[in-house]
Amino acid sequence: MNKEELAWKEESRKKVFDCRMFSIYESYCKSPHDELSTFTILDAADWAIVVPVLETAEGKKFVMVWQWRHGSQTMSLEFPGGVFEPGENPQDAAARELQEETGYKPGSIRKLGEFSPNPAIMANKVHFFLAEDLVNTGSQDLDADEYVAVELVSAETVFKGMGKPPYVHALMSSALALYLQQ
Amino acid sequence: MNKEELAWKEESRKKVFDCRMFSIYESYCKSPHDELSTFTILDAADWAIVVPVLETAEGKKFVMVWQWRHGSQTMSLEFPGGVFEPGENPQDAAARELQEETGYKPGSIRKLGEFSPNPAIMANKVHFFLAEDLVNTGSQDLDADEYVAVELVSAETVFKGMGKPPYVHALMSSALALYLQQ
Repeated sequence: MNKEELAWKEESRKKVFDCRMFSIYESYCKSPHDELSTFTILDAADWAIVVPVLETAEGKKFVMVWQWRHGSQTMSLEFPGGVFEPGENPQDAAARELQEETGYKPGSIRKLGEFSPNPAIMANKVHFFLAEDLVNTGSQDLDADEYVAVELVSAETVFKGMGKPPYVHALMSSALALYLQQ
Repeated sequence: MNKEELAWKEESRKKVFDCRMFSIYESYCKSPHDELSTFTILDAADWAIVVPVLETAEGKKFVMVWQWRHGSQTMSLEFPGGVFEPGENPQDAAARELQEETGYKPGSIRKLGEFSPNPAIMANKVHFFLAEDLVNTGSQDLDADEYVAVELVSAETVFKGMGKPPYVHALMSSALALYLQQ
């Protein structure tokens, strides 16, 4: 088939599950050959991920965060990031998450790109930013259930480590790919 | 806090939703400070994604696939891949998905790395492979509800395009990051 003939058409959707982090929908769709099928879709608020680049005496370093991750039940070393607050614009969400998790405030911040975290089943987007000219305010501002430790890591270490622990979060390699694209 | 003090301890979990593609669990956990919290976790079969490299008269090309994606409600240009069948090993899943979606059979295939697609909320893994020495069998073997068009794309085009349509799938940039790491 040609790619112009591959699109499905959603007829309707129904919410079948809801929790604090996301909602699940059944989507009733018509195929390119007019057959009806049901797909399950997860919708959530958008997320921001920030690549914070700090100039140090040893050269450029990424400001990264250690966190326990409940899905994988492991520790993970990641770029800062998190869920948008209601009505928040992507860049403000990115700058806020950076400062809350690491204490660093960006002097400049710009968008690197955006993806669907998994367009097969997820409806939300993840927005990536580059943060530079960082100023250390010296204090994190963490949520009650958030435990985060900051670590400075060279770009080369992150690049070589991706795909193996503690670099276990796929979206952090997406952030790195967009950083390398600049 | 030191990173050694950040781990939570799961006390128990309960299934709260189930569908063909995944199950949702409530996970009851104890924080590093012994506070109890509930987190929602999505579990699913593991996935494989394959970077298929084809030698052509115009140089190396990636064998990629156009698909309609129901989560994003958009077309997406992606590396081939899909969900493991029960009991299948990761490399066999990767080779099978490659051949089903594109008709190309790999002469050699090897693992590039693995990630959690999103360790914050997902329990499964995504495994990445490099497939080379491709032989075109000339026929796809698609599922009943699968509509896929093959396209050959240069590595440079994919690298420059990531983060913008039609390169909307974040995990494809993870695949590219692991390919560039080699």
